[in-house]
Amino acid sequence: MTDTTSQLSGFSFKENENATQGQTFDTQNVFDALKYNEQGLIPAIAQQYDTKEVLMMAWMNAESLQETVKEGRVCYFSRSRQNLWRKGESSGQVQIFKELRMDCDGDTLLLLVDQTGPACHTGRRNCFYLALDQNGEGASSGASKSAITVTDAPIIDPKELYKK
Amino acid sequence: MTDTTSQLSGFSFKENENATQGQTFDTQNVFDALKYNEQGLIPAIAQQYDTKEVLMMAWMNAESLQETVKEGRVCYFSRSRQNLWRKGESSGQVQIFKELRMDCDGDTLLLLVDQTGPACHTGRRNCFYLALDQNGEGASSGASKSAITVTDAPIIDPKELYKK
Repeated sequence: MTDTTSQLSGFSFKENENATQGQTFDTQNVFDALKYNEQGLIPAIAQQYDTKEVLMMAWMNAESLQETVKEGRVCYFSRSRQNLWRKGESSGQVQIFKELRMDCDGDTLLLLVDQTGPACHTGRRNCFYLALDQNGEGASSGASKSAITVTDAPIIDPKELYKK
Repeated sequence: MTDTTSQLSGFSFKENENATQGQTFDTQNVFDALKYNEQGLIPAIAQQYDTKEVLMMAWMNAESLQETVKEGRVCYFSRSRQNLWRKGESSGQVQIFKELRMDCDGDTLLLLVDQTGPACHTGRRNCFYLALDQNGEGASSGASKSAITVTDAPIIDPKELYKK
């Protein structure tokens, strides 16, 4: 796979796969080598930094990534609204930015964050509340075979989240 | 946002946002309502089920999801090879499937897995070994300002992983 973006920017994910632990690279060069999709977006996973709970997955463009790092508050790109989405701007449930991780081929971001209240617009702490376990049964022990179980209740009534 | 797929399948993510904890739904109906992109793919985050480490992000199509649940071993869809990618088929580093989580709007999967050895093709335990912390400094304390730091070394030499 040719990697022209990376060659221009001075950093290549592919060419630095064997970099040693502790080795450092210029941030802007690495950012310039990130692989955005045809819409200019890259998937960003948000993980609560201390409990390691995966909270949600959303999308960023180059501008929202720069703003996140600069402001210390997570900003995504809303695909439905087609503009910057400062997490918590309407609900008040912000994500404080703690650390950014990029994956081996530069096409996925992992954000370590400190989430205020619920990350999910349904009022639940995280968005992944629909579960199927490895036996094809719901995660809740009493569930019938081949059922998806709702694992979490809202921690805030969603009506309260967006009432302003 | 209209949601015709969901209406046809008998399950709607949107309409069931207020489902109560413990409520169950038919697995196939929920699977049929998942939102795949134009290429028929959905992002799947793999998280080590006990340590909660985020290992990698890859893509699934409907067939790879069905196979994962049926076989109890994670199968993705390889975008570069355009076919099913049974994780570990060439490296031996498989992902045992533990639990599937779907997000609130049905467009992202979270897989809880038990990863044998490294998840990353570079031989590292996970793919997210390039880090920037919240102060614009590398995660390693000695790093210079605005640097990306390599946080992990391979646990297996990548040459050993793919030598067959």
